[in-house]
Amino acid sequence: MQLNPNFSALAESYLFTEIVNRTRAFVRANPEAEVLRLGVGDVRGPLAPCVIEAMHRAVEAQANIDTFRGYELEQGAPWFREQIAQWEYVRRGIDIAPDEVFVSDGAGSDLGNLSDILSAENLVAITDPVYPAYVDTNIMAGRKIVYLPCHAGNDFCPDFPDQVPDVIYLCSPNNPTGTALTFDQLTAWVEYARAHECLIIFDSAYEAFVRSANVPRSIYEIKGAKEVAIEVRSFSKTAGFTGIRCGYTVVPKDLVGWNGVEKVSLNALWLRRQCTKFNGVSVISTRGAAAILCEEGAKQVQAQVAQIMANADRIRNTFIECGLEVYGGQDAPYVWVKTIGQKSSWEMFDYLLNEAQVVCTPGVGFGKQGEGFVRFSAFAAPEITEKALQRIKCLLMS
Amino acid sequence: MQLNPNFSALAESYLFTEIVNRTRAFVRANPEAEVLRLGVGDVRGPLAPCVIEAMHRAVEAQANIDTFRGYELEQGAPWFREQIAQWEYVRRGIDIAPDEVFVSDGAGSDLGNLSDILSAENLVAITDPVYPAYVDTNIMAGRKIVYLPCHAGNDFCPDFPDQVPDVIYLCSPNNPTGTALTFDQLTAWVEYARAHECLIIFDSAYEAFVRSANVPRSIYEIKGAKEVAIEVRSFSKTAGFTGIRCGYTVVPKDLVGWNGVEKVSLNALWLRRQCTKFNGVSVISTRGAAAILCEEGAKQVQAQVAQIMANADRIRNTFIECGLEVYGGQDAPYVWVKTIGQKSSWEMFDYLLNEAQVVCTPGVGFGKQGEGFVRFSAFAAPEITEKALQRIKCLLMS
Repeated sequence: MQLNPNFSALAESYLFTEIVNRTRAFVRANPEAEVLRLGVGDVRGPLAPCVIEAMHRAVEAQANIDTFRGYELEQGAPWFREQIAQWEYVRRGIDIAPDEVFVSDGAGSDLGNLSDILSAENLVAITDPVYPAYVDTNIMAGRKIVYLPCHAGNDFCPDFPDQVPDVIYLCSPNNPTGTALTFDQLTAWVEYARAHECLIIFDSAYEAFVRSANVPRSIYEIKGAKEVAIEVRSFSKTAGFTGIRCGYTVVPKDLVGWNGVEKVSLNALWLRRQCTKFNGVSVISTRGAAAILCEEGAKQVQAQVAQIMANADRIRNTFIECGLEVYGGQDAPYVWVKTIGQKSSWEMFDYLLNEAQVVCTPGVGFGKQGEGFVRFSAFAAPEITEKALQRIKCLLMS
Repeated sequence: MQLNPNFSALAESYLFTEIVNRTRAFVRANPEAEVLRLGVGDVRGPLAPCVIEAMHRAVEAQANIDTFRGYELEQGAPWFREQIAQWEYVRRGIDIAPDEVFVSDGAGSDLGNLSDILSAENLVAITDPVYPAYVDTNIMAGRKIVYLPCHAGNDFCPDFPDQVPDVIYLCSPNNPTGTALTFDQLTAWVEYARAHECLIIFDSAYEAFVRSANVPRSIYEIKGAKEVAIEVRSFSKTAGFTGIRCGYTVVPKDLVGWNGVEKVSLNALWLRRQCTKFNGVSVISTRGAAAILCEEGAKQVQAQVAQIMANADRIRNTFIECGLEVYGGQDAPYVWVKTIGQKSSWEMFDYLLNEAQVVCTPGVGFGKQGEGFVRFSAFAAPEITEKALQRIKCLLMS
C-alpha cells in the first residue's frame, strides 16, 4: 500500500506535551508547590441545568422502544437545523435557511473535514499565530500555505497577501491572541474575497464572548458574505461542550466554486461529504445543545460566559497594572501578553512557572509571530485566577 | 476557490430516496394499507438497561464541577482503550494493545476518514455488492477502484483480482448479502495481502451476530493479519448505538506502509490524523459503550442480538419454504434473496410492496451484482417480521 506522502511534511507539535513535561518536572522538584494553571483552553463546567435536564430526558427516551431514536440525519435533525437558523441567525436579522446549517460533532472535525471538498491545488492563507490544526489539515492535503502575520502593528488584523490565495482561514474572536475583527476589518476581507473569488473559512467558535458593539459575531452580518464564506461554530466554549461534542457549520447556498469544469454549489458538496463520511451527531448531544437555544437556556449559559469574561478582565487589568503590553481579552477568553525584558515565550513560561508557580501557554507554539508572547486563558475558576494573578503581581511589581 | 474535482465523478445514490418515494406513493394510493418495513438497517432499541444507567450517571457527572469532564483525548480515554483491548481481544487470545485501539464516533466516520492517511494513487479493491460509502469515499479521493464480484458462484467470497490492488475493503459479516467469510476464506485474503503488501480495511461492524464456529469475528484471529489489516468496529448494531455514536478502529503497530520515501507506521499516521481532525467522542457515549464490555452488560446486549437473529431465522426459513434462493442470515442480520421469475430487484420490490405491503431493499442499489436480489433486514420487531412473512408466504405459495 502507498500512504499519504504529505504527512511527512507535518511538523511535530510539542507545545502541549512540552508544557506538561516542564510542569511535571517542576512539581517533581517542588512537591509542596501549588501550581496554578492558566494555560488550558478547556472549559471547567459544570453544564447548565437546562442542558443536564435535556440530556437526562434524551437518555431516558432511549430506554423506551416508543421514544427510541436510531440514526439521525447526517446533516442534523431538521427541527434542530431550523432552531439554529432561527435562534442564531434569523432572530438577529441574518437570512440563513435551515438547509444551510450542518450539525456536527464539533468545530474541530468540521475545520478539518472541509478540506475534503476543496482542491489540493488551492493556495491557502492562514494567520500567524494560529490554532495549529488549520495548518496541519492543509499540509495533510498537500496544499501550499501563505502565512498572514498578525501583530500589534496591524492591530492583529492580517494584511492582504502579495499572492491572491484561494482559501482564507479567519478566526474571530481569535485563539490564541484573544483579539477580534471589527465590522470594518471583516468587511474589508469579505470585499477582498468577493473581488478575488476566494473562499473564507470563518471560525467563530468564540462568538459567545463578544462584548464590543463593533465586533460581529457572525461573518454573515457583513453584506455579501454569503457568497464567499463558510462559518464554523461550536457549543464547546459557549456552553461547555468540549466533552459532549456538538457544533455546526453554515454553508450558504449562494456559495459556488469552480470544480475544473463548472461552477458548483459548496452546500451540495458538503452535504454529499457529510452523508458519505459522517453518520450524524449523538442524539443526546443534540438535545443538550438545543436546550441553550431559547430564552431560558441562553440566560443560564450567559451567566457562565460572564464569569469567564470577569476572569479575562482580571487578567487584562493585572498585566496592564504591571506595565506589560496586553492584547485581547475584551471579546475572547484569551489574553495575549508580551513577555518582559525581551524574554522568549518559553523563557517567560519558565519564569512564571518557577517564580510564581503559574502555567501559561508560550505564544511561539502558535507560530513564529507568537514568539515573545504568552497566552493566558480565562477558563480557570475565579479564585484560582485571582490567586495566580496576585502571585504574578507580586513577582512583576517587586 | 477551486473545489475537489472528484466529487463530479460520484454517482447520485437514489436507493433510499427512491424506496421512500415509492413507499409514500403506495401509501397515498392505498391509505388503509398497513405497510410493514423489513428494509432498513437501523436498530429499533431500546438500549440495554446498563447503557441507560451508565449514560444517566455520565450526564449527572457533567452537572458537578468536581466530576465534570471536558476534552477527552482524541484517540479515546486511556481506560476505555484498555477496556476494549482487554474485553474484545486479549480475553479471546488476540494480542492487541490499548494504543492500537482508536475510539471514534462510529464506523461510518472511520471508514471514510481512513482515506486521509492513504495515497490518492492507490488502486482500491471493493466488493460488489457493497455498502456504497466505501466506493464514494474513494471516488472523492480520486482513487481508481477495481470491483470484486461476490455471488453464489464464489460463495460470496471475492476472487483475487487480475491486477494487484493496494487497498482491499472486506466486510464480514457482510452488509448487504448477510454472508460471512470463513476462517479459510479470510486466511486466503490475509495471505494474499501479505504476499502483495496490500492493506486490508476490515469492516466487522456486524461481528456480534456471528454464530458459526468457522467464522472469525475479528481479522486478527488470522495469523499475520496484524501486519496487513486495519479493523473497524462499531457499537451501532451490537448495542443499538446508531443514534448514540461510538465505534473504534484498530490500527496495529506492526502495520507499515510506503510513504514515497520510507516505510512508516500507520498507527502513527492515524493518531496524527485523529488528533488533528477529530476532537474525541462524547464522554456520555463513551460511558454508555463501556457499560456493555463486561459480563453483565454483554449478557443484556446478547439477549437483543438473539432476538434479531431469531428474526433472521424466520426470514430465511420462510423464503426457503417458498422455494426461493436464499443467502446470509446465519451470521448477520441480513438475508439476501434471489427474486422470483427473473424479476429485477426493483420489480421484486414493487411486487412485494403492492401485493404484500412489505418493504425490502432492492439489491441493485448496492452494485451491479446485486441485480436480481433483494435484501431483508432482521431489525424489525418480531411481530412485524412474523406478520410480513405470513403475507409473503401467502403471496408466494398461492
